[in-house]
Amino acid sequence: MCGIVGIYNHAEASNLAYLCLYAMQHRGQESGGIVTSEDGTFHQYREMGLINDIFTRDVLTKLPGNIAIGHVRYSTSGDSSLKNAYPFVIKYAHGWLAVAHNGNLTNYKKLRSELEKEGSIFQATVDSEVVMHLLAKGGAAPLEERLIKALQRIKGSYSFVFLYEDGLIAARDPKGFRPLVIGELQHNGQKTHVVVSETCALDLIGAKLVREIEPGEIVILEKGTVRNIKPFTPAKKRAQCIFEYIYFARPDSNVFGRDVYVMRTGFGRALAREHPVKADIVVPVPDSGVPAAIGYSEESGIPFQMGLIRNHYVGRTFIEPKKEIRHFGVKIKLNPVRGVLEGKRVVCVDDSIVRGTTSQKIVKMLKDSGAKEVHMRISAPPTVWPCFYGIDTPTREELIASSKSVEEIREFIGADSLAYLSQESLYWFEKTSPREWFCDACFTGDYPEELDDMPEIEKMAKKTS
Amino acid sequence: MCGIVGIYNHAEASNLAYLCLYAMQHRGQESGGIVTSEDGTFHQYREMGLINDIFTRDVLTKLPGNIAIGHVRYSTSGDSSLKNAYPFVIKYAHGWLAVAHNGNLTNYKKLRSELEKEGSIFQATVDSEVVMHLLAKGGAAPLEERLIKALQRIKGSYSFVFLYEDGLIAARDPKGFRPLVIGELQHNGQKTHVVVSETCALDLIGAKLVREIEPGEIVILEKGTVRNIKPFTPAKKRAQCIFEYIYFARPDSNVFGRDVYVMRTGFGRALAREHPVKADIVVPVPDSGVPAAIGYSEESGIPFQMGLIRNHYVGRTFIEPKKEIRHFGVKIKLNPVRGVLEGKRVVCVDDSIVRGTTSQKIVKMLKDSGAKEVHMRISAPPTVWPCFYGIDTPTREELIASSKSVEEIREFIGADSLAYLSQESLYWFEKTSPREWFCDACFTGDYPEELDDMPEIEKMAKKTS
Amino acid sequence: MCGIVGIYNHAEASNLAYLCLYAMQHRGQESGGIVTSEDGTFHQYREMGLINDIFTRDVLTKLPGNIAIGHVRYSTSGDSSLKNAYPFVIKYAHGWLAVAHNGNLTNYKKLRSELEKEGSIFQATVDSEVVMHLLAKGGAAPLEERLIKALQRIKGSYSFVFLYEDGLIAARDPKGFRPLVIGELQHNGQKTHVVVSETCALDLIGAKLVREIEPGEIVILEKGTVRNIKPFTPAKKRAQCIFEYIYFARPDSNVFGRDVYVMRTGFGRALAREHPVKADIVVPVPDSGVPAAIGYSEESGIPFQMGLIRNHYVGRTFIEPKKEIRHFGVKIKLNPVRGVLEGKRVVCVDDSIVRGTTSQKIVKMLKDSGAKEVHMRISAPPTVWPCFYGIDTPTREELIASSKSVEEIREFIGADSLAYLSQESLYWFEKTSPREWFCDACFTGDYPEELDDMPEIEKMAKKTS
Amino acid sequence: MCGIVGIYNHAEASNLAYLCLYAMQHRGQESGGIVTSEDGTFHQYREMGLINDIFTRDVLTKLPGNIAIGHVRYSTSGDSSLKNAYPFVIKYAHGWLAVAHNGNLTNYKKLRSELEKEGSIFQATVDSEVVMHLLAKGGAAPLEERLIKALQRIKGSYSFVFLYEDGLIAARDPKGFRPLVIGELQHNGQKTHVVVSETCALDLIGAKLVREIEPGEIVILEKGTVRNIKPFTPAKKRAQCIFEYIYFARPDSNVFGRDVYVMRTGFGRALAREHPVKADIVVPVPDSGVPAAIGYSEESGIPFQMGLIRNHYVGRTFIEPKKEIRHFGVKIKLNPVRGVLEGKRVVCVDDSIVRGTTSQKIVKMLKDSGAKEVHMRISAPPTVWPCFYGIDTPTREELIASSKSVEEIREFIGADSLAYLSQESLYWFEKTSPREWFCDACFTGDYPEELDDMPEIEKMAKKTS
Repeated sequence: MCGIVGIYNHAEASNLAYLCLYAMQHRGQESGGIVTSEDGTFHQYREMGLINDIFTRDVLTKLPGNIAIGHVRYSTSGDSSLKNAYPFVIKYAHGWLAVAHNGNLTNYKKLRSELEKEGSIFQATVDSEVVMHLLAKGGAAPLEERLIKALQRIKGSYSFVFLYEDGLIAARDPKGFRPLVIGELQHNGQKTHVVVSETCALDLIGAKLVREIEPGEIVILEKGTVRNIKPFTPAKKRAQCIFEYIYFARPDSNVFGRDVYVMRTGFGRALAREHPVKADIVVPVPDSGVPAAIGYSEESGIPFQMGLIRNHYVGRTFIEPKKEIRHFGVKIKLNPVRGVLEGKRVVCVDDSIVRGTTSQKIVKMLKDSGAKEVHMRISAPPTVWPCFYGIDTPTREELIASSKSVEEIREFIGADSLAYLSQESLYWFEKTSPREWFCDACFTGDYPEELDDMPEIEKMAKKTS
Repeated sequence: MCGIVGIYNHAEASNLAYLCLYAMQHRGQESGGIVTSEDGTFHQYREMGLINDIFTRDVLTKLPGNIAIGHVRYSTSGDSSLKNAYPFVIKYAHGWLAVAHNGNLTNYKKLRSELEKEGSIFQATVDSEVVMHLLAKGGAAPLEERLIKALQRIKGSYSFVFLYEDGLIAARDPKGFRPLVIGELQHNGQKTHVVVSETCALDLIGAKLVREIEPGEIVILEKGTVRNIKPFTPAKKRAQCIFEYIYFARPDSNVFGRDVYVMRTGFGRALAREHPVKADIVVPVPDSGVPAAIGYSEESGIPFQMGLIRNHYVGRTFIEPKKEIRHFGVKIKLNPVRGVLEGKRVVCVDDSIVRGTTSQKIVKMLKDSGAKEVHMRISAPPTVWPCFYGIDTPTREELIASSKSVEEIREFIGADSLAYLSQESLYWFEKTSPREWFCDACFTGDYPEELDDMPEIEKMAKKTS
Repeated sequence: MCGIVGIYNHAEASNLAYLCLYAMQHRGQESGGIVTSEDGTFHQYREMGLINDIFTRDVLTKLPGNIAIGHVRYSTSGDSSLKNAYPFVIKYAHGWLAVAHNGNLTNYKKLRSELEKEGSIFQATVDSEVVMHLLAKGGAAPLEERLIKALQRIKGSYSFVFLYEDGLIAARDPKGFRPLVIGELQHNGQKTHVVVSETCALDLIGAKLVREIEPGEIVILEKGTVRNIKPFTPAKKRAQCIFEYIYFARPDSNVFGRDVYVMRTGFGRALAREHPVKADIVVPVPDSGVPAAIGYSEESGIPFQMGLIRNHYVGRTFIEPKKEIRHFGVKIKLNPVRGVLEGKRVVCVDDSIVRGTTSQKIVKMLKDSGAKEVHMRISAPPTVWPCFYGIDTPTREELIASSKSVEEIREFIGADSLAYLSQESLYWFEKTSPREWFCDACFTGDYPEELDDMPEIEKMAKKTS
Repeated sequence: MCGIVGIYNHAEASNLAYLCLYAMQHRGQESGGIVTSEDGTFHQYREMGLINDIFTRDVLTKLPGNIAIGHVRYSTSGDSSLKNAYPFVIKYAHGWLAVAHNGNLTNYKKLRSELEKEGSIFQATVDSEVVMHLLAKGGAAPLEERLIKALQRIKGSYSFVFLYEDGLIAARDPKGFRPLVIGELQHNGQKTHVVVSETCALDLIGAKLVREIEPGEIVILEKGTVRNIKPFTPAKKRAQCIFEYIYFARPDSNVFGRDVYVMRTGFGRALAREHPVKADIVVPVPDSGVPAAIGYSEESGIPFQMGLIRNHYVGRTFIEPKKEIRHFGVKIKLNPVRGVLEGKRVVCVDDSIVRGTTSQKIVKMLKDSGAKEVHMRISAPPTVWPCFYGIDTPTREELIASSKSVEEIREFIGADSLAYLSQESLYWFEKTSPREWFCDACFTGDYPEELDDMPEIEKMAKKTS
């Protein structure tokens, strides 16, 4: 889970990158960084923490230059260190080079092992480091050529933004797992190009969306011109991440050509049609469950109420109280509104159930606040398989739906009823965006890209699906 | 604007105080502090910033003791310094004493000037310092007696929690401007008393609401017993702050005996009845406008949509971009959802208009995203008069409604229509909570408590109202 | 132990105050602070830590104004908090007032108790707070009058610098316990007055020493003029702190009219005359023992060698290693030079023995490095009585010389011989500075100023001496 | 300029490494770091700043394992960043590997360029990165073999400590430019090996010096045994850095088999014999000039006095005062003692003159304090050539002695006389340590190791010498 940005041709490139990262903070709260090129001289700053805290005015002042790339990152605990913060910067035979990456390479370990055998050394444990090595191995060939060759060797999902001494390159994997768009900004009669993961970042800086970078496309911004290469590899079937719609992207973004908010209300309406229930109110699990709950309410006619209030001051450093204080579960984030819930039959809408423990606490909280019945409705199919294309999910063992039936899960979470959106209903929008264009491996185990580093998972999934 | 807490009789008193302050962070984000008494020895920590950042495990470990009081504070810029952070602690003839205060004394300057003439020195510029001086002037009399005398001299709004070497005292002003409740927690067979500004803090620590501390009541927790004195001054007409319902309190709190969320949806329903409009969607200005918008939608039958998305990562330190980057107004907090707004007639519900500039930007943002019409609906009457009882409002000159008519404001903000809730409709709940019990001076100029420090405002308001 | 500074009439007053505090850092490493007056408006910054770390360029920029006072402070652990950091600032009937104080009031508790009985409240536990209260009690009288009255009530040692809205006042107690001098700086044709504890601070900023502020003198800098009042109380016998010469002041300062370095080499020469010994080298305990060792070497003809090297990187935060690592005593600060010590008879010169444990470790260290004999020579008489006039000493029980004879101490520290400078020899300089002008209560128990807060110590000392 | 440490077989390895780095802080104050191996798992922490500030108890707790290496670093401004902080850690085909390095490779750029041409990427700009690449290129061969090959390709000065998953390796360049010793510590019946740059670090942790690691020797600590390989390359003439004796090492260390303090007093005595002068006192420029001044005093019989006092609180962050305050040169570090200097003919002893500006200020300061004559004596020959073997010196142009005669320098600094130690006298100790064993290129231009990256300097030096 990451958000990336590239700014080409703006006197305040680092400041714009900062704003774009801020708008995409939801895509990664662990670390952030910006690298700029000032006439070929690189300046960089990377830090653990939130964009707001990392980039003070002082720091931004030290990032001059009119080309910039930036990154916000989330990662699993083991790899969480400044060393692995992005953008990743190297010096090689062709000068300085930096990269920001959203996605996950599925043959990283394999390539790394091959490179190590050839004598390469690694200083971080991020998968882009292999891309950098591959780019360096290409001899004296131009960057474009070396890049195409490197991309042909890697597998998995990637939206890349590269910064080199003379320009900026954006590239998206041939299946288009992760979003990447290009926008424009007019400023003092000059045109600035902006590449970002999500359109909400364009909105913030007042840039106009031009178009998606296409799957398998490379866009080169150099010497004031925009060139593109596409496809850099034989065209493949798309595999856009359906989870960007369900949970990950901001509702005010336009992803893969469609408004996320609209997709989510659509999931809610489909859910209401597929799994109706007699109830008094529809209550979302905020914030991500809100649009689906609105959709459910619209379709069912059951009134929508914010029966759970989210505390937005939760930070990274919250101190868990001592054992002497009774365990309070999700209360630190969510608090019920008794006056809304008391005596009511509640449809509670959430976007997914991962381990089941949070849902269990939410059901209990609703009932403790007087809800007569709690009907849990999930605006997606059961999450059964881990993602290897850039969404941080627990192992298969930890995913409750991989070992329990819907009825067993219902019992575990203590709801009066539980229903998931079916695969069929998930694609309510099929007429406009073909179902074949999406990766839904987390629901189906149908992994569209080989998992070289995870052969046993791939085997198991193939057997099952 | 402040939130206060007192914990009596719990081995983890500072930890519980921390959790309560965290739940009341919305009442003050400038500074926070906790003071504990460990068998008569005081420990304290106060810092600028958010509760989450101030109280690390290390800091909490250094706050032992089974009685604690705490404070979160917001203040106007001039007074914003650690020196003025609360709780305020002194040593005097009777030992150590600390106080946390929510409210504002309206004769602070007058009393201070009198005290200075008598030779008192002041080290902070917070109004509770005069209360401390008054408490110290009472000679050898018991704390209760000195407290009653002191409270009889001060005017304005106050909910106090005092910590002294042997116990804890809570007191609420005779008109009950600010909320203050008492709750209980059972723990290892022992009873802990908890005094807080808002019930959402009780919810977080699993405490049960016992009752409001009544206007003009003093509650004394000492030697394991609870005593109260009421009223400590001839009973007066209540003047509960209506703005706690409209904007200030958390929607999941119960304030002055009623659920805030329910009050707000009520305002929205009343607004729909009073100011209906033909429209396609109802869109709140999040987060505070959400319940009223839900109410408006319910009553009008116009679908509720989250057409504006709030970015919750905005922190205190956000760096305004340079002038070279075009001014982006409220975009840093709010972003429109084009797919929801495009081609729609929008009812936009907010809780108040202060200077009008934010509303102006919101209307423009909605229209830029394709809204065909924007009908602004405010879930309260126009804010015409500044508050002197603890809500931070700009001066009268800055309040747009003090000099412009509704039509002029509409024109200024660029809406197709604008309507405020009337005084009549505001009290839709009158049958259960008498209208006379509330202070609505911000709308009416009818200040229920003398403004000794602001004679010219008082005079002007009397003339007008 | 404190250092104070006052700057009058310089556009960069806070910057000069900073430099002076930096030069006097040895007088207090716990906290530091500066308060400035910019046309009557006060600006202040106080922090725990070293001057270097506290005052960044940002902080100094926020301290405009052409009058400033500053303070560095050391204190016993109990009182060590930001609350007690100096300068101490109040607001009272006559406006703003700040004070920096070097010394210790011996009737502080008594006065405080009296003030508390009259209804005064205290927020810190520093003794100047009583002075502020006394100044505030004087009604409408001019500051000078109120100050004289206040000073007549307090006992003990004090060098004060007060900052008020219109100017700066320096005052020194009638017995002159602590040093205080006034200097001048020419700058852009203007004269700046500088008041500091030690002349080394004048040297740093290029100011010229004018003279000592005399015991019992008040100097008033206001409206561009210098006035003085002297004495403000019937003249008393001087009681200048002899320990400033022995240990406390910087060797490059001129204190009480004499160069500290010269005094120290004098102590060393007297020590050599009084307690000669056959030895190969004279080795100081650095840094404070260096001048006395040089004197000892000069007088005795025994070569001076730096046989112990001091590590100057020791900071406040040094982490003591775990028990698993063998205890290394003073090694963290001092390391012996084997090539110098091996096979040698060593005269080791130090300025005092407090508890004896450090000397014990030094003797062991010298012997472990091959010293054949270690003759400890102390450049002062045995420290038998605690100081109540501003030097931080342990209690009488902890002072090894209060319960052990010289021979017993020698045995305890493991030296081959041990000798202290006698009272007679201490005053080798008597012809130029009369012996009667000094306080040597730490050696004699002859406390020159009443100890109202310590009646039992006073009684015991009188009996003994 | 760096200090390095390796600890083998101690439960508190990181704590011991911390103490050793603390003792060697004078070898590098810019950044510090420690890497530990806990059964093959690496833990690391590197930070800008002083050891004291970097390593808190928390940080040390996160560095478990019984093998550790550490580093303190000084560098020229351009390269000063966390990225370049040491120890340098990589992952390669053989697992994890870390290195700490004292010295400077003179063919770094050449090797780097070759490696880049082969496709290697670089992430830092420190010279050890090329060593790591060379180690990785050696295929499947054992570490020892690959190390020998790598060391055979690099030129310049190096004392290395490597940490790998199973053990620790120390290596010293064939000419022995930089010091490196091995010591032992008995602890709970177990033996701990300690490798450090300077013996003062052994002293602090109570370890016993075993011996120097010899030039061209590799020491391998693995599986509880100590093995060594020597020489790993045909034996070469030694080139021990004479500047370690003159200035760089701590006086309480034993370097290249001799006590530094003794060497320095020897330089002073030789200086007195070679350049006597009629004078009243000998005054060192503290701290580094102290032992030489003591030697000068001993030999000449002129009394030694600390006429300049050093302020040890100078930190990295000292704020230069504004221009409005007159420039105060070296005063921030040094202050004269008027009582010592007044009317005296002063021999001022320093260890070197680099640009001449500091000496100029010192002479002025001494004269301003009343010195009648100032005779500057330098305890080394003129510094004419820059060092490329690990001492940070300015360029040849900035070295005053490269363009000015002694008489011209004397005039520039304003001294009454100036004399340097001659090359002959420098080697007063020749009988015990052959002169041929030392590198004195900074004085002679006789660079003992090829400067591949600096061909023009090498050429110029050859012409001159």
